[in-house]
Amino acid sequence: MAIQLTKDEQKLVDHAKEAIIKYNKQRKAKGGIDTLYAFVLSDSGKIYDGACFEITLSHSSICAERVAIANMVLKETYKSKIETVVIFDPVPREQEESSTPCGTCRLVIWEFGTPNTTIICGQYIQLKNGWAFIPKMEKYTIKELYPRPYKMVRWD
Amino acid sequence: MAIQLTKDEQKLVDHAKEAIIKYNKQRKAKGGIDTLYAFVLSDSGKIYDGACFEITLSHSSICAERVAIANMVLKETYKSKIETVVIFDPVPREQEESSTPCGTCRLVIWEFGTPNTTIICGQYIQLKNGWAFIPKMEKYTIKELYPRPYKMVRWD
Amino acid sequence: MAIQLTKDEQKLVDHAKEAIIKYNKQRKAKGGIDTLYAFVLSDSGKIYDGACFEITLSHSSICAERVAIANMVLKETYKSKIETVVIFDPVPREQEESSTPCGTCRLVIWEFGTPNTTIICGQYIQLKNGWAFIPKMEKYTIKELYPRPYKMVRWD
Amino acid sequence: MAIQLTKDEQKLVDHAKEAIIKYNKQRKAKGGIDTLYAFVLSDSGKIYDGACFEITLSHSSICAERVAIANMVLKETYKSKIETVVIFDPVPREQEESSTPCGTCRLVIWEFGTPNTTIICGQYIQLKNGWAFIPKMEKYTIKELYPRPYKMVRWD
Repeated sequence: MAIQLTKDEQKLVDHAKEAIIKYNKQRKAKGGIDTLYAFVLSDSGKIYDGACFEITLSHSSICAERVAIANMVLKETYKSKIETVVIFDPVPREQEESSTPCGTCRLVIWEFGTPNTTIICGQYIQLKNGWAFIPKMEKYTIKELYPRPYKMVRWD
Repeated sequence: MAIQLTKDEQKLVDHAKEAIIKYNKQRKAKGGIDTLYAFVLSDSGKIYDGACFEITLSHSSICAERVAIANMVLKETYKSKIETVVIFDPVPREQEESSTPCGTCRLVIWEFGTPNTTIICGQYIQLKNGWAFIPKMEKYTIKELYPRPYKMVRWD
Repeated sequence: MAIQLTKDEQKLVDHAKEAIIKYNKQRKAKGGIDTLYAFVLSDSGKIYDGACFEITLSHSSICAERVAIANMVLKETYKSKIETVVIFDPVPREQEESSTPCGTCRLVIWEFGTPNTTIICGQYIQLKNGWAFIPKMEKYTIKELYPRPYKMVRWD
Repeated sequence: MAIQLTKDEQKLVDHAKEAIIKYNKQRKAKGGIDTLYAFVLSDSGKIYDGACFEITLSHSSICAERVAIANMVLKETYKSKIETVVIFDPVPREQEESSTPCGTCRLVIWEFGTPNTTIICGQYIQLKNGWAFIPKMEKYTIKELYPRPYKMVRWD
């Protein structure tokens, strides 16, 4: 069952596919490997990119989603809201399920989005001569992925 | 609507209430304030305690749930599974909703539990002369709070 | 005692001052406040920007230094090395000491730099009509700030 | 060159060696592997244990040092101060240098210790029939490992 994308979501997916090929070409040229990328569309209409940032001492690693959102805040301030997040994870072959945001990213998307912020999850494969995107994608609202969110108790 | 607790869950809630009063007395005696506590019941039948661990440089802080689970792993190894988690958050007055685990704790409970691991969320109030637990509690399975969990793609 | 800057370090400081004014103008226009910014100069000659990324649930926050380094890795791969990091922290009045990178950022700068990667720490003040940079800055190598670094034991 | 241990430090090292053997026996019995352990001696005279807590989604992992300190805070409140930290890391054979705390742990030890809080770093080896501790250990003050600490700027 194909998901339906809004015009804005389609714009973000199109941007993501182009950017991933550009970034992966650079990585490959330097001997690096493919990675998970995330892209966020702000309510300003602008797009921000992120890639998984892995550190040897693992607790310092940062997921691609949060790198992209940090870039939105850097360029736009905390007032911006995420409209949509797109994630593409490299896979050795088509997987039944696409990678969804981790729990930490869900709480951050919740804080910087609205309950109806959408999350689109896809997969891509390295070919001999480029990269191919699996047509099947999944789409969720953050409300679906982070039900009954943690809320800080107010003491004032 | 009162939630139904299994015998094991009731045992963990009873432990939690007693431990919170003990810990809070110590905190108060030293000029400290109440905090959020979490308790986990391992499938070994043993209980582990945790309190919110807040650092001035905030990104190093650790939620109570993860302190308790780290203690389970310290004392029992990674083979143990969480049966139930109980969380009690201090509140100035009864809140409509109790605090649920944050996104990061959801992913960790998922990893160290089963889809049916239960999470019981309650509130407590500081009185002039002690602490009182709000009768109303909420109960979830981790599957409900962390749907469509992140799964690492296997490359082997 | 004034610190000596290399040509590359001066270039990064100049970039930092210009970027901070640009970002802060945007923040102020939207009702936001000044923040700590970090900038890294890669051995490729390119510069990457970061700002402190603070989340209500604090353990998910990311320091400006790591946002900037994540951007270097996003755009250049893990093969790049940090030549210099510049940090400017907003202050209400000139402080005796400038803010240095936190412990987590020290380990990440260590991993993505060389022992002689330099770190330049400065302060800035909001004026009625703009921002002013305190002339006094501090300069360290990462080796000075992160002596006897943690090294993972090799088992192969 | 052998390090000199105070009476309190020797007490903590003795506790550490005994605890590591106890924990590792449990781990081995359940098919687990050795891990890095940390122990802290509070200024109350009490000792708290921690083991490295590794999560598949690595950014949620917690170092042994911070698990031990979180336990000190759980049991004693934020008023306590760390007197000494002991770390023992498993090694396949004697290493020239012992594992030191990571940058994140340095900032946390700094916050919950004094500049002269000591850190003792050792190694241990799994034998066919038990575990052996390498006689050589290293000893630092946190001031030596975390010079020019990050300090939050005060705005009041």
